[in-house]
Amino acid sequence: MTLRIAEIFGPTIQGEGALIGEPTVFVRAGGCDYRCSWCDSLHAVDSAFRSTWAPMTADAALAEVERLSGGQPLTVSLSGGNPAIQDFGPLISLGRARGYRFACETQGSVARPWFGDLATLVLSPKPPSSGQRVDWDAFAACVAAGAPAGQTVMKIVIFDEADLAWARDAAARHPGLPLYLQPGNPEVDPDRPVDPQALADRLLWLVERTTGRGWFTPRILPQLHVLIWGNRRGV
Amino acid sequence: MTLRIAEIFGPTIQGEGALIGEPTVFVRAGGCDYRCSWCDSLHAVDSAFRSTWAPMTADAALAEVERLSGGQPLTVSLSGGNPAIQDFGPLISLGRARGYRFACETQGSVARPWFGDLATLVLSPKPPSSGQRVDWDAFAACVAAGAPAGQTVMKIVIFDEADLAWARDAAARHPGLPLYLQPGNPEVDPDRPVDPQALADRLLWLVERTTGRGWFTPRILPQLHVLIWGNRRGV
Repeated sequence: MTLRIAEIFGPTIQGEGALIGEPTVFVRAGGCDYRCSWCDSLHAVDSAFRSTWAPMTADAALAEVERLSGGQPLTVSLSGGNPAIQDFGPLISLGRARGYRFACETQGSVARPWFGDLATLVLSPKPPSSGQRVDWDAFAACVAAGAPAGQTVMKIVIFDEADLAWARDAAARHPGLPLYLQPGNPEVDPDRPVDPQALADRLLWLVERTTGRGWFTPRILPQLHVLIWGNRRGV
Repeated sequence: MTLRIAEIFGPTIQGEGALIGEPTVFVRAGGCDYRCSWCDSLHAVDSAFRSTWAPMTADAALAEVERLSGGQPLTVSLSGGNPAIQDFGPLISLGRARGYRFACETQGSVARPWFGDLATLVLSPKPPSSGQRVDWDAFAACVAAGAPAGQTVMKIVIFDEADLAWARDAAARHPGLPLYLQPGNPEVDPDRPVDPQALADRLLWLVERTTGRGWFTPRILPQLHVLIWGNRRGV
């Protein structure tokens, strides 16, 4: 059985969410069951890019992770696309046996038994600005599948006030999940530079509308990779 | 008994380290046993500012925290200066009884029994660029005092290659402490704007010299408050 892999890159730091700042190798899966309007990873989502996705066995994927990390165990983040539409169980088993820790980032639309083998499961339900609709039963099944994981957290991208109101409801559905919010990034063209001041401004906007309004549940974080590298790929 | 308080402000987000992004009210203690060359909080350190430090009872300090947070419990960060040269035990006891969680940021030069009552103890030994010298016996006493705390972490500011080599040795002394590194901020004048691009450049420099060189132990984080607000006080 082979995996469809859009890219494997790193080591670099995790730029967002619960593991922000953590040295990480990223395994980006090709293919997604969603089409978010503001997707920043279309090269791993749109089937027009399918010819660029490499078929790899779990052995081959782990070999590439080991090559990049010099054989030194670290955190491996499974991202996408939606990695949960493929079976990453064998890669996780092989990697854990070599000392690697796994995180997975998924919207929570498809539950997998291997969620329980993760150190960190990041479920990121998509708010109204995405144009997608969340199936909360499927989401709850993902939370249940992740129960044996080291930690399960919820991360929501916020573009506007409607997203923010929606995030409050989402948080109320799963009050046991630590919550992370991050400002949406409207500048996703990899060939155009990102303005760090604009990124700072969006972070300030979100802090003022959450912490500043007395909502103390979520941690508010930017996307550090965008601050450092803009929308360049492979970093 | 009264505390010397330089400022109480928030709620805002914690800008750095293990609790980055966490909604927080800051209680900044006045007075410090160190004089770091690059100190970004001289108004809470230099005794020339002593007349601006308010004598407050623990009751009065908690009342101000409650006023700022609208009575809603959140994380209270004790910073400074060095909060460990004063007795914050009574404030922590009073606050915990009302549901507040406490974090404390200190260089690790003075151990206190109340370290054990913290949710998060951040020990930040100062590297060579500070011009200070760490007493590692005192530091170990701080680690021991913090054993009952929720978590104890080590955070080191890095200005140059010498600091980085020193941080590796510091990490080796306490391999059980999660380690956070952050680039030093040479622009500490509160009246001058900070260049977000320069902050991004310093973060990239540190990532390249740690994660990029195969040192996967530390998490690498910027100072978000500097990104958002520059060196303004009270935010």
